[in-house]
Amino acid sequence: MTYDESAGFVLGIDFGGTKVALATATTTGERLRSTRIETRAADGADEVLRRTLEAAQGLTDATPGRLRAAGISTFGVVRDGRVRLAPNVRGWDDLPLPAILRDGLGVTALGIENDVNAAATAELDWGALRGTDVGLYVNLGTGTGAALIVGGRVVPGMHGAAGEIGYLLREPGEPGYAHGHAPLEEYTSGSGLAARGTTLLRRSVTAVDLAAGRDEPAIANLLDDAAATLGMTVANLATFLDPERVVVGGGMANAFLPAIQSAVMRAVPFPPPVEAARFLDDAPLIGAIALAVEAL
Amino acid sequence: MTYDESAGFVLGIDFGGTKVALATATTTGERLRSTRIETRAADGADEVLRRTLEAAQGLTDATPGRLRAAGISTFGVVRDGRVRLAPNVRGWDDLPLPAILRDGLGVTALGIENDVNAAATAELDWGALRGTDVGLYVNLGTGTGAALIVGGRVVPGMHGAAGEIGYLLREPGEPGYAHGHAPLEEYTSGSGLAARGTTLLRRSVTAVDLAAGRDEPAIANLLDDAAATLGMTVANLATFLDPERVVVGGGMANAFLPAIQSAVMRAVPFPPPVEAARFLDDAPLIGAIALAVEAL
Repeated sequence: MTYDESAGFVLGIDFGGTKVALATATTTGERLRSTRIETRAADGADEVLRRTLEAAQGLTDATPGRLRAAGISTFGVVRDGRVRLAPNVRGWDDLPLPAILRDGLGVTALGIENDVNAAATAELDWGALRGTDVGLYVNLGTGTGAALIVGGRVVPGMHGAAGEIGYLLREPGEPGYAHGHAPLEEYTSGSGLAARGTTLLRRSVTAVDLAAGRDEPAIANLLDDAAATLGMTVANLATFLDPERVVVGGGMANAFLPAIQSAVMRAVPFPPPVEAARFLDDAPLIGAIALAVEAL
Repeated sequence: MTYDESAGFVLGIDFGGTKVALATATTTGERLRSTRIETRAADGADEVLRRTLEAAQGLTDATPGRLRAAGISTFGVVRDGRVRLAPNVRGWDDLPLPAILRDGLGVTALGIENDVNAAATAELDWGALRGTDVGLYVNLGTGTGAALIVGGRVVPGMHGAAGEIGYLLREPGEPGYAHGHAPLEEYTSGSGLAARGTTLLRRSVTAVDLAAGRDEPAIANLLDDAAATLGMTVANLATFLDPERVVVGGGMANAFLPAIQSAVMRAVPFPPPVEAARFLDDAPLIGAIALAVEAL
């Protein structure tokens, strides 16, 4: 790859729960320079933004040429220029993030999406969902999320909240969003499994500990149960959407892929192929770059 | 309404499990003449089609002007010019229905959809989903189905099978489509409830009998349980799609509407309004007319 400075470059920023990842790229999406900082969510939104803009400045100063567009991936959902459903960073909920970043970065062309939709955009533009008209992207990581693709585009939904499957109910009548719960996420996500495992085993465990401890029957049960629930969930979403293809991303994608494939084969009238995502680790950052390129 | 004969007319045909309904309408969808015949599915597809075309001929002969387009609503799903997932009428599965009807009716402009998508089209063009960009239509009748609307259009899915929620699993690992089951439909549809009620009560009952017999505790339990399952299901689909509006049609819509509204309010992050459909009885026929008008 050769970088033509006169064409300028784009910037992608991925706001994650533990780190903020930043990268500059050419206007066709080839990565130029990257950096990352800790999120330190406890410091609050103002401080997270101040340090992010500082890191962005360092990165754009070090990249030859002119910054032409930015793409942002954030936790929560984005609607009408504000972030919603982001309770984990103080001050992030209701934040006018697009306007703040346009000002702070000095760009007018800016695309913004939640992390799962950004990851789906990365798969759609450059990965396992390329060329897909109707598709389903499922993200299994610290959280549990999805994105639906119709007409070759990620569907944002009426409030930017399409695909927020962490809030799906597992049983009729159980407490859900209105009672402060995200039932599917609490049952199957990395953070949810860690919490459930810690209670079950009466010792503090992470999702990684659980994955490494399958020879303990209680752990195997916990994981198999989560896998069966995720299998049913993805199969049901595929029945509803009738997608060409299902792509599973996120840090726990490979652990749950066989159970999902098997449930889809058994339950969906026209079972689509179910594949691992191309971008497992930094999909939201790559998606942020894709959003920046689309915003040009 | 005045009918301008020189503009010609359209024909709608709704193939249902017990009856085939037919109507002619103006090119703006105003009903002109209607008729219906029994389906008599046991006679097989050829015979059903022969009698339908005979009825259509009678109707078009009696309508002044020229037949310009036809719209068809059928059970099953339509893909690549053939009907699929229609096991209840011998010979219907894999039938090249669009080609047969184009020939038989002598029209080239023909729109065809399954009954639920046709009903959703009726609501979208003339009813409770008018002007909706992202919407969810749920049909609760003899069967259990849905349609999703994105960008103001019914999404057919990759195989014409989007919205076939009768096949949704209720529990991880239960036998589904590959084992000849439609779990949600068997649990909650009119036909499913009748079968479950007949087993439970050890006497033959219909869904109408059940609705009238709520003072019997076993019947009340059966219906409440189905209502809770449908509530969870529609809430989950609304969380996934984030629609502007949910519309519930079909003969059992009103019976289950309160449970669905309550589940949606409790479980969906941005709860959409949940309303009864405008067309409860003959929605698929009205949808067939809408498809004919769209095909002009």
